[in-house]
Amino acid sequence: MKSQPKAVILSSGGLDSTTVMAIAKQEGYSIYSLSFNYGQRHSHELIAAEKISNVLGAEDHLVIDVCLDKIGGSALTDNIEVPKNRSGTIQSRMIPVTYVPARNTIFLSFALAWAEVLQASDIFIGVNSIDYSGYPDCRPEFINAFENMANLATKSGVEGTLKTRIKTPLLLLTKAEIIKKGIELGIDYSITHSCYDPSSDGLACGYCDSCILRKNGFKKAGVDDPTQYIT
Amino acid sequence: MKSQPKAVILSSGGLDSTTVMAIAKQEGYSIYSLSFNYGQRHSHELIAAEKISNVLGAEDHLVIDVCLDKIGGSALTDNIEVPKNRSGTIQSRMIPVTYVPARNTIFLSFALAWAEVLQASDIFIGVNSIDYSGYPDCRPEFINAFENMANLATKSGVEGTLKTRIKTPLLLLTKAEIIKKGIELGIDYSITHSCYDPSSDGLACGYCDSCILRKNGFKKAGVDDPTQYIT
Repeated sequence: MKSQPKAVILSSGGLDSTTVMAIAKQEGYSIYSLSFNYGQRHSHELIAAEKISNVLGAEDHLVIDVCLDKIGGSALTDNIEVPKNRSGTIQSRMIPVTYVPARNTIFLSFALAWAEVLQASDIFIGVNSIDYSGYPDCRPEFINAFENMANLATKSGVEGTLKTRIKTPLLLLTKAEIIKKGIELGIDYSITHSCYDPSSDGLACGYCDSCILRKNGFKKAGVDDPTQYIT
Repeated sequence: MKSQPKAVILSSGGLDSTTVMAIAKQEGYSIYSLSFNYGQRHSHELIAAEKISNVLGAEDHLVIDVCLDKIGGSALTDNIEVPKNRSGTIQSRMIPVTYVPARNTIFLSFALAWAEVLQASDIFIGVNSIDYSGYPDCRPEFINAFENMANLATKSGVEGTLKTRIKTPLLLLTKAEIIKKGIELGIDYSITHSCYDPSSDGLACGYCDSCILRKNGFKKAGVDDPTQYIT
């Protein structure tokens, strides 16, 4: 019997990466879930990522500490206020202050290292360039350039024993389509966490970009929003 | 008066990265030194990196903790023996077990993040594809692919306010040429640390790939080797 192919899944505990993990599972991969403790305000997402990795039967869930707060430059790691009520301006495609410098480059680099050790060809990331905050490292041209670089970076790539693929099943889906896909796959979205600025007990603020995109997604999908909000 | 341009220098405390830092200084850059505590056997290199950053007048020296030992796959982070006396086989271009999966990709990704926060265009790395251990992420094709990806990854790149350049002044130099260059620039190589497997008090083993390349370099350059070896 052929063994299952392995995949590394970047898992933030949010709606998108959870849907990606369920898609990878459905496609027959054995799941290696990778999360980061990067000094983010919303470290509740790590509790969610652990729960999700268990529920979806991941073989392993690795949490890497990376002190991006030492580098700074973002409302998600610094003492800069997270913007609220930008629903009208999210679509303006201005890159907001919640952008974390080179975050997906750093996260994908660790995924590449782990994938090489595991001998996993596929790295899944829940980037999306439709209902998103305008981050440059969520766009297809960035993902393609990373994949190209990755295949020149590793021993396995150079020796030709492993071709790295960065898989982005959500890239061209709306948030509503992502939610519908996840519901089909049986995801309980109440265990996922998206808010950038939650209360100390993990309730969602309801007004940051991430909450607004998520709320609108459930509405447009015609699915009850299971998120617990502060008010 | 025009202010000095800033550069992020990947600083391992070794001979190559120290020479690179001196070159960047000579070229008029203000120096931001970046090192990593990655669970390496040879953490004496971090003491060296701190000393070198001070001696060369770096504006800042940032040490990032990244637990590559959680990911494993290398003699430099795992309980795998560091190979010795490979002088005959270093040139065979087989990638040795001291290869650390995706290490330079990870290090350059952090450099990219810090460079964006500092608004520094230039990232210097002491890779070398002549007298080297055969690591894939030291080759020019990897560096070019990283630079291409970097300019698609960041807010500054996409907004066109910063063009990232990965500078590799040692790429095509022999170890002897690197040493001669450094001596010209006044480097005291006795404060640098290259050994992969030093004694607990930081003396060099003399027989790992890194020690052999370094020893031969001093010999061919006709420069006294200031390294303190175990025997």
